Amino acid sequence: MVGGGQLARMTHEAGIPLGIGFRLLSDTPQDSAAKVVNEVVVGDYRDLDTLRAFARGCDVITFDHEHVPTGHLLTLQEEGLTVRPGPHALVYAQDKGRMRARLTELGVPCPRHRLVADPADVERFATREAGGFPVVLKTVRGGYDGKGVWVVGSAAEAAEPFKAGVPVLAEEKVDFARELAANVVRSPHGQAVAYPVVESVQVAGVCDTVIAPAPGLAPELALAAQELALRVAKELDVVGHLAVELFETRDGRVLVNELAMRPHNSGHWTQDGAVTSQFANHLRAVLDLPLGDPRPRAPWTVMANVLGGDFPDMYPAYLHCMARDPQLKIHMYAKDVKPGRKVGHVTTYGEDLAEVRERARHAADYLRGVIDE
Amino acid sequence: MVGGGQLARMTHEAGIPLGIGFRLLSDTPQDSAAKVVNEVVVGDYRDLDTLRAFARGCDVITFDHEHVPTGHLLTLQEEGLTVRPGPHALVYAQDKGRMRARLTELGVPCPRHRLVADPADVERFATREAGGFPVVLKTVRGGYDGKGVWVVGSAAEAAEPFKAGVPVLAEEKVDFARELAANVVRSPHGQAVAYPVVESVQVAGVCDTVIAPAPGLAPELALAAQELALRVAKELDVVGHLAVELFETRDGRVLVNELAMRPHNSGHWTQDGAVTSQFANHLRAVLDLPLGDPRPRAPWTVMANVLGGDFPDMYPAYLHCMARDPQLKIHMYAKDVKPGRKVGHVTTYGEDLAEVRERARHAADYLRGVIDE
Repeated sequence: MVGGGQLARMTHEAGIPLGIGFRLLSDTPQDSAAKVVNEVVVGDYRDLDTLRAFARGCDVITFDHEHVPTGHLLTLQEEGLTVRPGPHALVYAQDKGRMRARLTELGVPCPRHRLVADPADVERFATREAGGFPVVLKTVRGGYDGKGVWVVGSAAEAAEPFKAGVPVLAEEKVDFARELAANVVRSPHGQAVAYPVVESVQVAGVCDTVIAPAPGLAPELALAAQELALRVAKELDVVGHLAVELFETRDGRVLVNELAMRPHNSGHWTQDGAVTSQFANHLRAVLDLPLGDPRPRAPWTVMANVLGGDFPDMYPAYLHCMARDPQLKIHMYAKDVKPGRKVGHVTTYGEDLAEVRERARHAADYLRGVIDE
Repeated sequence: MVGGGQLARMTHEAGIPLGIGFRLLSDTPQDSAAKVVNEVVVGDYRDLDTLRAFARGCDVITFDHEHVPTGHLLTLQEEGLTVRPGPHALVYAQDKGRMRARLTELGVPCPRHRLVADPADVERFATREAGGFPVVLKTVRGGYDGKGVWVVGSAAEAAEPFKAGVPVLAEEKVDFARELAANVVRSPHGQAVAYPVVESVQVAGVCDTVIAPAPGLAPELALAAQELALRVAKELDVVGHLAVELFETRDGRVLVNELAMRPHNSGHWTQDGAVTSQFANHLRAVLDLPLGDPRPRAPWTVMANVLGGDFPDMYPAYLHCMARDPQLKIHMYAKDVKPGRKVGHVTTYGEDLAEVRERARHAADYLRGVIDE
């Protein structure tokens, strides 16, 4: 797996019972995953020779993030290495402009959008196509967790996104009721499974809480979202986990927000809440093993991200949360605490959503240090 | 953790979400756990200097097996290292003679037993104390999985156990109805949790299947077994996981068979079947973290060991089992397949015991190669 973040850490964890040999390409020996994996290669994923040396002897190459240059992956593939998801699919998770173009071609509902050239062009898009300001601007490559995304209220505010010299995509700002995610996993010969559609609560552009399944979601809309995600996976020839982030509009439709072709924050609840976790199924898919059952194990599962707060030492809070709630499942990433950085998550499950949600919320807030009782 | 077997492998797996730094002392770099842990020291646990160098910088030392010399552990402790369980407790899992003496002193029910000097002494024990042959002979140290244990029908058959030059314990052969295990976890300040009492089905001295909870066990006997295990943990000052293997007699009593002070095969079901696994709770205990909920997540969970069969390549069977039963949980140890060797286990869970048991049995038999349909 290329990338040493928490997704690789948790994928390795899921690979241990499967008996899978796991090799990691990590930026540093201190990355989250590098601390727990036996076979770690430290190097730069942007360097083709590093990638090539890392990949030699691997049955399959997969990813913790989407930042590996598409051209390098095409080269590896031409040299006979197995890359999953393949670069022809992954490019749609790497480049938001190509993603929007392809989904629109497939008739998949998306926010109104267009590549824009400059602030004046943003103004034209806003007034003629998007029903007015505010609109959303995104660099087509390199963004995550709200980075590379701007909500602008006028052409005057639209200068910043163009400074990076990367193409900029403009999108209407959807007046959504809430955000959902439809997560599916697909294997090379086309077997696929769909997890229950979840609600994803975002705070300041960062995923805060995920509720599985999405409360009160109309069954026909849940089914439509799963079918949409399965269709996208098939049409783009995705292999592995595909997260389709969705807007649920106030008039009962879903629009695609983002795609991710790797384990995803909206699927962390599956570690404790589903028969087979997203991490195990991602591995099973990229290794062309039969997929595991995606069904939930409890009526409700809630995942809350633990963000770094003002206190670098989380140990006292960690003790408190374990003592307070013996059923709490804590997942720490062994990352240095920095304010706002994702350093772990907690999951809770049970029959009463309000209680399950409150337990997760309390633990995440206590670990962050925003409450102390 | 000292020892690179599958117990260490699965303890590391459980430590990843807890954010725990895990260092391993392994006989070889190819041991089951050594393949998945980042920080591996290869060396001989019987050598004090190796142990000392390994332990330096660890917050706590714990074990995958009970073979580390007690004297070495006392030395490490005297030198200021934290050893859990401590050698004063661990000695009762290392030396069956001392275990029997101490449990008897505590009034804990055990089979009739006595250290014996030679075959003539075995004859005296059998006829005067145990109600006749057959009796069970055990070397007091070094046995596991039926090794170091003999069932003898006469003094003439009793020569073998004395050849190792290790003290030999004689025990009555209990006419038991079945074998049970009461698993508890205890932390340094005395917090303890008890898992449901399980039935352990042995074949040729090796654990074959574990059923959680033990079917049809009288609630008062289950409670008595849990209380017994908690009392043994407290009286021996065990820290970490304690497995108390029990005989359920035909007249409705329990007698202690063996003790293990580490994660144990009779607790593997907890990985998929309990809120907190034995591995996570062992780590929480030895690190003096609050313990996790030991309750089951399903009405029935069954664990079946996968033994090596005649076919070294298990991959086709592994594919078949995943495809046949998407709910099956497979745990492979990445060990070379040798006939009779434990190379993995499977767990299944659900509401119908017969169906749950059949699924586990089928998968274990298919992986071993004794069935092919």
